[in-house]
Amino acid sequence: MFVSDQQPASDDPSMRHDVRNMLATALLAADLLSAHADPAVRRQAETIIAAIESATARLKGQRK
Amino acid sequence: MFVSDQQPASDDPSMRHDVRNMLATALLAADLLSAHADPAVRRQAETIIAAIESATARLKGQRK
Repeated sequence: MFVSDQQPASDDPSMRHDVRNMLATALLAADLLSAHADPAVRRQAETIIAAIESATARLKGQRK
Repeated sequence: MFVSDQQPASDDPSMRHDVRNMLATALLAADLLSAHADPAVRRQAETIIAAIESATARLKGQRK
């Protein structure tokens, strides 16, 4: 109940923009880690970058 | 034109769910990095975690 109290994020035209901005910060940090000397760090960084890029594409309305 | 060809992500009820799933993958990788021996890696990992958590909260419809 009280549904109108909580604005659904999907109806908020600025939501996708806000989320993409936040993810840009994470992507920058992951990019820095993707050049790290430790290959394990580079591997995790690549996982993070791929996941964020998929999420960003999905936010743009593209099917994965 | 041809607006109907491209479904806006904001009208897709599964979009937020898909994006949160993708970000969960990135969050798991960042969590692993947050225990790394190199303090620079831990710092970047914390940046990534904070950004993804903000994005996830925004996707839930919460104001930042």
